Amino acid sequence: MNIALFPRVGHLRRSPIVPSYLSQLRPCRFHNDGRNRLSGFWTPTGGITKKSGTQDSNDLLIQGGFLRQAYSGVFHMLPLGLRVQEKLERLIDKHMRSVGASKLSLSSITSQALWERSGRLKKDSEFFKFQDRKDARFLLAPTHEEEITTLVAGAVNSYRDLPLRVYQISRKYRDEPRPRQGLLRGREFIMKDLYTFDYSSEAAIKSYTAVKEAYVRLFDELRVPYIVATADSGNMGGSLSHEFHLPNPKGEDAIISCSSCRHVYNEELSDGKAYNDTAELSTDPIQDKGSDGLGPQQAPAISTDMWTSISGDGKTLVRVFYPKYLIQEGQSEPVERQVNSHAIRAIARSVGIQLDTGVTSPLVKWQNIARMQEQDPKSTILDVYDHRVRPYDRPPLPAGQSMEALEQLNPQYAVLRQFPGTDTKLDCISAVTGDRCSKCGEHSMETHTAIELAHTFHLGTRYSKVLNASVAVPSNLLADSARTVDATSDKSKTVPVPLEMGCHGIGVSRMISAVADTLADSRGLNWPRAIAPFEVIIVPDKGLEKEAEQVYDTIAESQSGVVDAIVDDREKNLAWKLKDADLLGYPVIVVLGKSWKRESKLEVQCRRLDNLREMVSLHDLHSYTKSLLDRI
Amino acid sequence: MNIALFPRVGHLRRSPIVPSYLSQLRPCRFHNDGRNRLSGFWTPTGGITKKSGTQDSNDLLIQGGFLRQAYSGVFHMLPLGLRVQEKLERLIDKHMRSVGASKLSLSSITSQALWERSGRLKKDSEFFKFQDRKDARFLLAPTHEEEITTLVAGAVNSYRDLPLRVYQISRKYRDEPRPRQGLLRGREFIMKDLYTFDYSSEAAIKSYTAVKEAYVRLFDELRVPYIVATADSGNMGGSLSHEFHLPNPKGEDAIISCSSCRHVYNEELSDGKAYNDTAELSTDPIQDKGSDGLGPQQAPAISTDMWTSISGDGKTLVRVFYPKYLIQEGQSEPVERQVNSHAIRAIARSVGIQLDTGVTSPLVKWQNIARMQEQDPKSTILDVYDHRVRPYDRPPLPAGQSMEALEQLNPQYAVLRQFPGTDTKLDCISAVTGDRCSKCGEHSMETHTAIELAHTFHLGTRYSKVLNASVAVPSNLLADSARTVDATSDKSKTVPVPLEMGCHGIGVSRMISAVADTLADSRGLNWPRAIAPFEVIIVPDKGLEKEAEQVYDTIAESQSGVVDAIVDDREKNLAWKLKDADLLGYPVIVVLGKSWKRESKLEVQCRRLDNLREMVSLHDLHSYTKSLLDRI
Repeated sequence: MNIALFPRVGHLRRSPIVPSYLSQLRPCRFHNDGRNRLSGFWTPTGGITKKSGTQDSNDLLIQGGFLRQAYSGVFHMLPLGLRVQEKLERLIDKHMRSVGASKLSLSSITSQALWERSGRLKKDSEFFKFQDRKDARFLLAPTHEEEITTLVAGAVNSYRDLPLRVYQISRKYRDEPRPRQGLLRGREFIMKDLYTFDYSSEAAIKSYTAVKEAYVRLFDELRVPYIVATADSGNMGGSLSHEFHLPNPKGEDAIISCSSCRHVYNEELSDGKAYNDTAELSTDPIQDKGSDGLGPQQAPAISTDMWTSISGDGKTLVRVFYPKYLIQEGQSEPVERQVNSHAIRAIARSVGIQLDTGVTSPLVKWQNIARMQEQDPKSTILDVYDHRVRPYDRPPLPAGQSMEALEQLNPQYAVLRQFPGTDTKLDCISAVTGDRCSKCGEHSMETHTAIELAHTFHLGTRYSKVLNASVAVPSNLLADSARTVDATSDKSKTVPVPLEMGCHGIGVSRMISAVADTLADSRGLNWPRAIAPFEVIIVPDKGLEKEAEQVYDTIAESQSGVVDAIVDDREKNLAWKLKDADLLGYPVIVVLGKSWKRESKLEVQCRRLDNLREMVSLHDLHSYTKSLLDRI
Repeated sequence: MNIALFPRVGHLRRSPIVPSYLSQLRPCRFHNDGRNRLSGFWTPTGGITKKSGTQDSNDLLIQGGFLRQAYSGVFHMLPLGLRVQEKLERLIDKHMRSVGASKLSLSSITSQALWERSGRLKKDSEFFKFQDRKDARFLLAPTHEEEITTLVAGAVNSYRDLPLRVYQISRKYRDEPRPRQGLLRGREFIMKDLYTFDYSSEAAIKSYTAVKEAYVRLFDELRVPYIVATADSGNMGGSLSHEFHLPNPKGEDAIISCSSCRHVYNEELSDGKAYNDTAELSTDPIQDKGSDGLGPQQAPAISTDMWTSISGDGKTLVRVFYPKYLIQEGQSEPVERQVNSHAIRAIARSVGIQLDTGVTSPLVKWQNIARMQEQDPKSTILDVYDHRVRPYDRPPLPAGQSMEALEQLNPQYAVLRQFPGTDTKLDCISAVTGDRCSKCGEHSMETHTAIELAHTFHLGTRYSKVLNASVAVPSNLLADSARTVDATSDKSKTVPVPLEMGCHGIGVSRMISAVADTLADSRGLNWPRAIAPFEVIIVPDKGLEKEAEQVYDTIAESQSGVVDAIVDDREKNLAWKLKDADLLGYPVIVVLGKSWKRESKLEVQCRRLDNLREMVSLHDLHSYTKSLLDRI
């Protein structure tokens, strides 16, 4: 045996075949007439003990025979689960084709040297690293910006080859510290990643928009509730990013939406800007007037608190004064509030300070650094005021921050109550439902926990510059460009331009789990038609197996199209099979039972449409079933 | 951004978008009307310098834009290559479905501990090993017997769930010392692996036969020349194995077939048995009569030579006397012959000796061991005679093997001229074309180098026993079994029976490369219809782009079926496009050129059918093209 192809060196070729030692053999169950049958499709539902208490969707996926955990965060997809996955992949293929993207398949193995060039090979990164027999250093790729940029750099030379859009659906790897919730946070997982290449930002934004619109169509076709959260923070130079979320209590993202103006964003992307209802112009946002400067009254803060952080260089102590308890409009009970560190980071960035929110004792660190260097530039204390806090409402300073202790260090004081150069006031706390929307001012904010399933991201030249991916563009095409520093009159000359890239991901494994969890009910899973393992299951009572084949043929194909059906021909009673069908979550169940015997009618069930049950004749079955499927 | 889904920590969100700096933008090339167009399908043919001298198929696959090498033995599949791969996967799916196999997808990550249990985690094995952040030891799976056996052990408990046939098509990994010849011998590669589970050998053989027949149908549908080589060596207890090969000079397997009796086997599987034309019974095959024992004259050896090897325990020196030059029947020139070490190993095994053919100086090693232990059991010299060698034709012993030097060590001598307990004489050399067939005795042997593409293998209980995969079988079903040692009269009692397994592989990446190499000619690749990236390419001359769409619609779909076509709508001249179409190897080329303008005729080209060129009207195009495709 050629071990190159089949490297199973340890196989013994000697296991003896005992001839004919069994008196009886069960007949082979495999039919070969093209009909889908559960007897010939491996769906192991046994062997798994039902968990006591509530089962979550991951339990249901295991109990229903969709998948099994192999190791922590590593899963085997069983035939039902793989069928769901392949349907999702075909759905993604369809929508990727709609933006002219070509499908390829990059290696899972990538070199550490390449990731060093891009600057992403960091010590504590979540990589599975390994070396080959010649000590070449590799890692299992968690994503493929480096590889695709290198590949395109070597294969595309002319602007005429652009726009280029390529994608793949493949296994990715991440040595996640705490794998959990089944496919939601695994260490081996399937992702779709699309990369776009253009030679101008304008064209790149067209690509970006095309992909985002395709994502919207894809999620619409899935027929699940979803949220598109913007990650476009205008103060950051206009980078473009959107996230597609499924609202779900298992989610780890906090999504905030306004039911009035429909603005949606991820809490991580908060920019710290408050809704501006009292215009107050200011040209100098940092007012050097000591820490006791007074401002106008703002909002119904019941009590205030202070939160501290420190700049990355250790020279600036940031003290944030925020409302610890707030009474919302129309409410009588105060609600405890939390500082939103993402907002504070954005505010600090607006005055050129990079915060390090990972420091546990910012004050101690700041004091130590301030003591060491009493010369210029002075250490600074920056006081940031949430727009609801009045400066004279500041809480007493804790021990160690007494005026005396701080004055000894002779710091510079600064106060920030608006965004620099604007009259926009500051919002330092995480939103809760009922808060005022920073865009429209209505008290109509809603918070959701959500699972991120997809994102779109404009990368610009982040990778193309460091990996030398550029194309030659005729200088006349660049005539009006800000980039052509020394534009010549020679129009035939070409100029190398780094590629403008975008990357656009969809979490395939994660989506299976998230959709399962979102639509499951007390009876079991409940797949949307687009990714159901089969669209329809035909469940015959005992003795009606032959008729079930007739029903299958009627439903599976007609002039108006194809329905993906399967017959449950296993040797079980009707009640068991129906319970199993509910557990597995087929969108439509067709029952051949008493009413078939009595009046040649089939019972069509659809749990997702208000537990619909309808008696239908064989003649109407195909069109009726299709009408149901079109709605789910 | 949630790095769980998109772990690209290093993305900068700040790359500025320079607004509208380009005066001109090329129109977006993407159409969305469902027609396949080369302008919207990424086929990078540029950037690769043509190798001087002959190009092999791997060069053609790279030049044609099917794939790119990422690292030694590691490849990226580009859109054309992935399309070939996906067609092959669908073909495999079809034939696996025909044996009732369910498709699943096992993790690429597997634990070293599991491979220790099966005894396959050896020190020098070709594994990519790594550890996770908690120091758990993993490897990238080269095959999945261990994982599937563990999975099935936990999910199948009753004989009623059998037969079970499951397969997957997935990436496999092997740290190959010398990756070479593109996809033929890679370190990351795609394989199909099917595993069968039965509860009796008889049923397992039915599964085996079903799979082998499906493989024959699959290779027939591929329409490539192939060889099925038996690996069923009767002297080894009846284990079942077959190999499917493509004859190809690049192959690393030597396949021997008889044009008379059609017997085919792999040289690796040679059993050392010669065709028996002079019956000579012997009851004691090892005759203890010194190294000068004489035997009858055998065959026209011009000169003889000696080849030495040593047993694994170092105690037995095996000296093989074989014909160094032989004159074949009907030939006048002698041909130099080589010892077939596989045959020698099989002969040695027949007297209970495991040879270690990796030792470079067997005599020195044997002498050292013999000197150390002059007590019993004595060291042995086993002389093995090819049936063509007369003992008195033995060549002079080389220095160090003089009678004196050996006699000092007082070894035991043994001679082997037949298989133990048989009158079958020994064949110690590799076959060449024209040799006598060991089965039918005709001088009709043919040797081929070949590429192994698939194999079928009956595993028996090799894995199920060590990994505790068994099912409960009612004892009455086992009544006649040799296994039921203490059969009771209680027929309701069940007995645990280890699963009888089979494993059946197809090298997917390898097949792409092997088929490409076998069918390529001086003009380029030449795909069989079943796995061509597209079945038909429509190549319009300049100005006929609109008509090409009409041709596309005519050919792509009609009442008699679907044809997988694409239009070459790139901005190149006709000659360039036709050359490119030849290089890429589309089975059928449809040219819209002068004859279209003149007489509304299309030129249909098919290189594989004797360079066929035929003028066809649009009306006949679909049916004519289908008739060609059905033959290739």
